Amino acid sequence: MAKDDVPEVVRNKRVILRDYVTGFPKESDMHISFSTMILKIPENHKGVVLVKNLYLSCDPYMRLRMRNDQDPEFTPFTPGSPITRFRVAQVLDSTHLGFKEGDFVWGTTRWEEEDSFIARPERLFKIRHTDFPLSYYARILGMPGMTACAGFYEVRSPKRGEYVFVSAASGAVGQLVGQLAKLEGCYVVGSAGSSEKVQLLKERFGFDDAFNYKDEHDLEATLKRYFPEGIDIYFENVGGKMLGAVLINMRVHGRVAVCGMISQYNLDQPQGTKNLMCLDYRRIRMEGFVVFDFCHLYSEFLHKMLPLIRDERITYMEDIAEGLVNAPAALIGIFSGNNIGKKIVRVAPE
Amino acid sequence: MAKDDVPEVVRNKRVILRDYVTGFPKESDMHISFSTMILKIPENHKGVVLVKNLYLSCDPYMRLRMRNDQDPEFTPFTPGSPITRFRVAQVLDSTHLGFKEGDFVWGTTRWEEEDSFIARPERLFKIRHTDFPLSYYARILGMPGMTACAGFYEVRSPKRGEYVFVSAASGAVGQLVGQLAKLEGCYVVGSAGSSEKVQLLKERFGFDDAFNYKDEHDLEATLKRYFPEGIDIYFENVGGKMLGAVLINMRVHGRVAVCGMISQYNLDQPQGTKNLMCLDYRRIRMEGFVVFDFCHLYSEFLHKMLPLIRDERITYMEDIAEGLVNAPAALIGIFSGNNIGKKIVRVAPE
Repeated sequence: MAKDDVPEVVRNKRVILRDYVTGFPKESDMHISFSTMILKIPENHKGVVLVKNLYLSCDPYMRLRMRNDQDPEFTPFTPGSPITRFRVAQVLDSTHLGFKEGDFVWGTTRWEEEDSFIARPERLFKIRHTDFPLSYYARILGMPGMTACAGFYEVRSPKRGEYVFVSAASGAVGQLVGQLAKLEGCYVVGSAGSSEKVQLLKERFGFDDAFNYKDEHDLEATLKRYFPEGIDIYFENVGGKMLGAVLINMRVHGRVAVCGMISQYNLDQPQGTKNLMCLDYRRIRMEGFVVFDFCHLYSEFLHKMLPLIRDERITYMEDIAEGLVNAPAALIGIFSGNNIGKKIVRVAPE
Repeated sequence: MAKDDVPEVVRNKRVILRDYVTGFPKESDMHISFSTMILKIPENHKGVVLVKNLYLSCDPYMRLRMRNDQDPEFTPFTPGSPITRFRVAQVLDSTHLGFKEGDFVWGTTRWEEEDSFIARPERLFKIRHTDFPLSYYARILGMPGMTACAGFYEVRSPKRGEYVFVSAASGAVGQLVGQLAKLEGCYVVGSAGSSEKVQLLKERFGFDDAFNYKDEHDLEATLKRYFPEGIDIYFENVGGKMLGAVLINMRVHGRVAVCGMISQYNLDQPQGTKNLMCLDYRRIRMEGFVVFDFCHLYSEFLHKMLPLIRDERITYMEDIAEGLVNAPAALIGIFSGNNIGKKIVRVAPE
């Protein structure tokens, strides 16, 4: 706050979506705009907070909101306005009883440096454990961590000795699912898109095995090789051909947690998936889930994850881009698999 | 039994699979052969029964066993041997304590007039309620009835007011699922392959609405018209394009019971199914099931169904072919949709 209670006026950078996107998104689908903002909530504006963003999360799901889809489950971004997604932020001003200046929070935000008044701050998660780097709340202790846990435990109920396959396994969610599966005593194989990532999966994240799907021409045969006994649990992040190849390699009573299908997001016409007949005679259960449905379990999730992180039984890899001006490139990069681990953007120092 | 305990020798007709089938099956893929049989179990052959078949059940699933599939879930039929499937039969002779001459049973059999010694008769269901036509045990009180109940109640947990779609709705299982859904207070629409079947669905089976899928060129739009609010439960009997069109019309937390995919059984290369991405963001659960897993619930099933049939709250339509020589044509016919209701073959009078 400036001297004499004269509110500070700042120049605020924002990432604006130019127009709805078809096909593969490009950096030029977004541009940086500037606005000016007063860093003080007007006195008559009750129950809101004003935050300064620290970290932004780059998620494949954002691609779905870049298209003009009539699906009621997606609110498309508004062309000409900032795009939105999870972030870690610090409260600059608050007229809400639950938050005070200086608090750290995570939740959904616009992609800008400062975030103007957040009208329903009760939707934010307050960060109470600050003995971890704050960026953890954009990744392992935030949405990707919750997604991995919700999908793996709530949806798929793993059992010791089961065979687990994770696609996009070095990504934000996949690397955690694999480690959680190992902690449960499962046999875990992951797929990724480069030999560097494959090495990481095996050496750093403790996967039993891993392969580069780009080197494989017959995914059905590949999976048969890695899972001669078949797959019990598939954590689905990619969709399309991979899903078809997995289904024909599933065991009876196999389970598929559908977390995302990144291979389909940039296609105007989605690919068809084969081998769905296996669902029937192999009694396979395939279930989609969305992390928002599990928010009420956040404290349980923390209770589980915090000791695992403190004891270094779980590790995590992030890939940080610096500055909001680099946010569009960072986001686009995840669709080419440029990132290794969770891609986040550091907007401001902690 | 012939006089003086000399066992009767009979000429036994059998339906033999010539060779593994590719593409659409033809009557000529099977032929009728004759054997001679002694209608008496040798005295030293304990714990077996000998039965005479009365009704045989024609099921789409049999097509899957006509191909040389390496899938451990299918035991292919053996070329040169009789094909097998559910039937209703009468015990002619027994050396098993649980069965005596004259008992009626249902279970799996070879397609022949007499069935030689059944080595594990404990797998047969004894028919205790004989106040119904025996053919009921090849349909509403047998496997198709169990399939409808298992899929609808066990797998999909219907709730009053939900929107239910059934494909192949006039078929053996579909017509029952629709009626069970109506009894639960659901809104039910069915698809079938002729205007005659559509009329039956609406007038005889009490579906709220029905359509002929062959008249529709854009199934996504068709389903949107019949379900402007979306579909809560889909009972899947056909697969392929229909499934893709359903998925994009499902509501959040929708459920798909995968009972069969008849549209795919005769294809050497299965079709791909689109719109699987909906599984994720609509949180759809899709689950395959096989009626054999529910056999332990048979007495519960009877307890539910018998009063419904006695009170005429459930009706059922069967399509009977006469004589084992007509069995191959009857079986082939179900893949062209020639049957209306459950296709069964009457092998011998009751």
